[in-house]
Order: sequence, then C-alpha cells, then structure tokens
Amino acid sequence: MLNEASDRNRSLAVVLVSGGLDSCVTAAIANADHALALLHVSYGQRTEARELRAFNDIADFFCAEKRLVVSLDHLRQIGGSSLTDPTIAVPDADLGRSAIPTTYVPFRNAHLLCIAVSWAEVIGAGHVYIGAAQPDSSGYPDCRPEFYDAFGKAIDLGTKPETTISMVTPLINQTKKEIVQKGVSLGAPLQLTWSCYRNEDVACGTCDSCTLRLRGFDQAGIQDPLPYPSNRLHEDRA
Amino acid sequence: MLNEASDRNRSLAVVLVSGGLDSCVTAAIANADHALALLHVSYGQRTEARELRAFNDIADFFCAEKRLVVSLDHLRQIGGSSLTDPTIAVPDADLGRSAIPTTYVPFRNAHLLCIAVSWAEVIGAGHVYIGAAQPDSSGYPDCRPEFYDAFGKAIDLGTKPETTISMVTPLINQTKKEIVQKGVSLGAPLQLTWSCYRNEDVACGTCDSCTLRLRGFDQAGIQDPLPYPSNRLHEDRA
Repeated sequence: MLNEASDRNRSLAVVLVSGGLDSCVTAAIANADHALALLHVSYGQRTEARELRAFNDIADFFCAEKRLVVSLDHLRQIGGSSLTDPTIAVPDADLGRSAIPTTYVPFRNAHLLCIAVSWAEVIGAGHVYIGAAQPDSSGYPDCRPEFYDAFGKAIDLGTKPETTISMVTPLINQTKKEIVQKGVSLGAPLQLTWSCYRNEDVACGTCDSCTLRLRGFDQAGIQDPLPYPSNRLHEDRA
Repeated sequence: MLNEASDRNRSLAVVLVSGGLDSCVTAAIANADHALALLHVSYGQRTEARELRAFNDIADFFCAEKRLVVSLDHLRQIGGSSLTDPTIAVPDADLGRSAIPTTYVPFRNAHLLCIAVSWAEVIGAGHVYIGAAQPDSSGYPDCRPEFYDAFGKAIDLGTKPETTISMVTPLINQTKKEIVQKGVSLGAPLQLTWSCYRNEDVACGTCDSCTLRLRGFDQAGIQDPLPYPSNRLHEDRA
C-alpha cells in the first residue's frame, strides 16, 4: 500500500512486470516518481500461471493505477526455446557457459517492449520501464544496453511526433546482489515474486533463474523469502 | 504457381503479408530470390477475415514453402485506433491532411516485425521483408525509412550473435503508381489482394486505403481488378 498519496499529480509510467525479482524492484523504483501502469505478458512459458499470480500480488501491493494482462500465443507457436516448448528440457544452471542457453526465447523482450510502447502511447505514459539486467543474466542478447539504446530510437521514430516515450532500464548494469539490496532498501515485496523457470509450486533452486537469484541473495547476505527444496543448501550455489 | 523450380537451394525469407497490394508485390519481389515463409498477423482489425482470405490466396499462388498465421488480441485490447476500436469510425480519405489519421494503430509495425524476426530466427531465415511505403502512405510514423533503420539495429543487437537477419523494405520509397507497375511487371496476383479498411464484401472506395490504391492504379493507367461501388467513378479520385 505504497501509494497513499494521490496519484493525480504524478505522470504515468508503464512498467513491465513478469513477477520476478528484477521487475518487482523496477516497479519499486518507478513508483518513487510515477503513477504505475503495470503490464504483464504471458507467452506460453511453463510457469505462466504462477508468474501471473506474482504479478497480481505485486500490482495489489503497489495499488497500481492501471494494469494490463496480455496473453500471446505466437511465441509458443514459433517455439525454439525450452521455456515455451515442452519437448525441450529446461537445463540446470551452467553459469560458466559461453553459449546462449535454450531458455532464450527468440527476440522476446522486443515483443514485450512493443506492447508496453503501444499501451503507453494510448494512455499517455511518458516512460516504459523494464527490469533487464546484463550482469548475472543468462547472456540473453536482448538484455544488453545496446539493444535498449537501439530500441529506444525505434520508439522515437515509430510513434506519433507528439508522443514522447523514454525507455528506462534502471537495473541494466546491476548485479543480482545489488538488485536484492536495492529492493530491500525500497521495501519492494520480494516475498511476492516468482523466478523459477521450471516449477509453479516450490522453486527448483537449480535452473538458471533460481541459481542467479539465490546467489544474489547469498552475496547480499539476505535470506531469500521463498522456500526451496531442502536438499538445495545455499552453500551449493556459491 | 511461380515456384516450379525446387526451393531447396534458395535461402528462406520471411515476408509479412497483410493481403494488401503492397505486401503482395513485396512477396513477388522476395520470390525472385528466396523461398518464401509468409507471415500473416490478425490483430483485431475490422476486415481481418477478408485479409486472411487474401493472405491464403496469395500464399497458395506463390506455393509458399512455409506459412504462419498469428492472431494478436492485445492491439484490440489497447485500442486507440479506428481500425481496432469499433466505437471510432473509419474516416473518409483526406490526403491533404497533416495530422496522423485515426487509422494509425499505435506502433503496429513494430509488433509485426518482432513476430517476423522471432520466426526468422527459429527457422533460419536470413531476411525479413515488409512492404512499408512512405510516399502515398497515410503518414504513419512506422512507415518511414528511419524507423526501419533503427529497428534493423535492434534486430542485430537483440538476437543471437550467430543470427543474421536483414530487414528488407523494397517499396519504402515507391509511390502507389510504381508499386502497381512493379506488381504487374512481376505477375503478382493483384486480383487476390484486399486493401479496404472498412468492408469485407465490396471495397468502399473512399477510405484512405482504397483511395490511395485507386489513385495508384489510375496513375499507372491500369484497371484495378477489384470491383467498387458503382457511384465511385475513377474520375472522383483524380
């Protein structure tokens, strides 16, 4: 219940909220300056029901002024990723790898940004926030700052002349440790988030997303509020 | 039936085919050099059933090696356009206007390109063709060459390092007259296309899209193969 002051004088910002750690902290950052228009996109990923629950919990927490939930079918139709194709297993984390893992969903973040930009143009929001972070990412190409710089130019050129939408990536150079610390300092509801790529009941603790999250909490010296299977001790992930 | 030679030695190109004149001519251009992977996107526009029929007719004509039909709900959810919001009337053409007409669908072409790029990355297509044309357009910002230049950079930076996808806009600087002439010279099946924004049975002849199309045929000195209401004489549109 962070928005007790009236939002009438605050400009709107669209924030992409997957329901994970990074997007929750991003919403907390945007909330300091803007009324929130929170956007969630389900795209056929394995844990979409759990992520949607996390989104709604987070949107309730921030008393979001607007919310939009979009369901895409085409990224699943197109496939090519272990997140959207049930015949490809989600691998355990291998943070030392150089190849892009099978969890990469081709050009996914561009789809998410397009939806955010169209919505922002219609509701008059001047900012689109996305919680992409390059350090401690899985090496996805659409998490790099250069991609967002280029996409920002496409937004300027592809929308109406009177439309001004800034793309904001407040976490782009932050490590997971720093993101956890930032979230705690802002009072972000990290207990409501969901990061696991595999499960919707108890987070597996071993996929890329769980591993990066747990290492971030460990390095920050903060206990992750989510439960994990008892055989996944934090020491394993150092 | 233009693809009688085997496509096995031709590289794949994804072509966005709405079913209109420009995309049909673009498919004919791409067909000269590539095996075709034709993509159609329905996004809740008024004439989506008729456009889908045109797409399938065109894909049959070219014996497309692959085809993908995607249905988006979110552009209708987001609204802000007379093409997707039934409460906003589609205006008659006013080609001398300076404002962007209500038929503009916010950032639409970026959504279409994202789908094309994701599909191209998965099927290994090295080119994405789109029939955007700036002259004789309705002034939509996402029909400008600068937008495609910026988006092309976002494609390079947002896909895997080994992915190389060129964006091709062969009509970007062509007038409607030149597009009609090009289509006729390539034997493109213009009789299978659909351009009208309003109707699905007989094209209205008076919306922006019909007006620009008819003017292009008139200026090329070629009879539009589609029927129009008898009170819309070609002289009215000179």
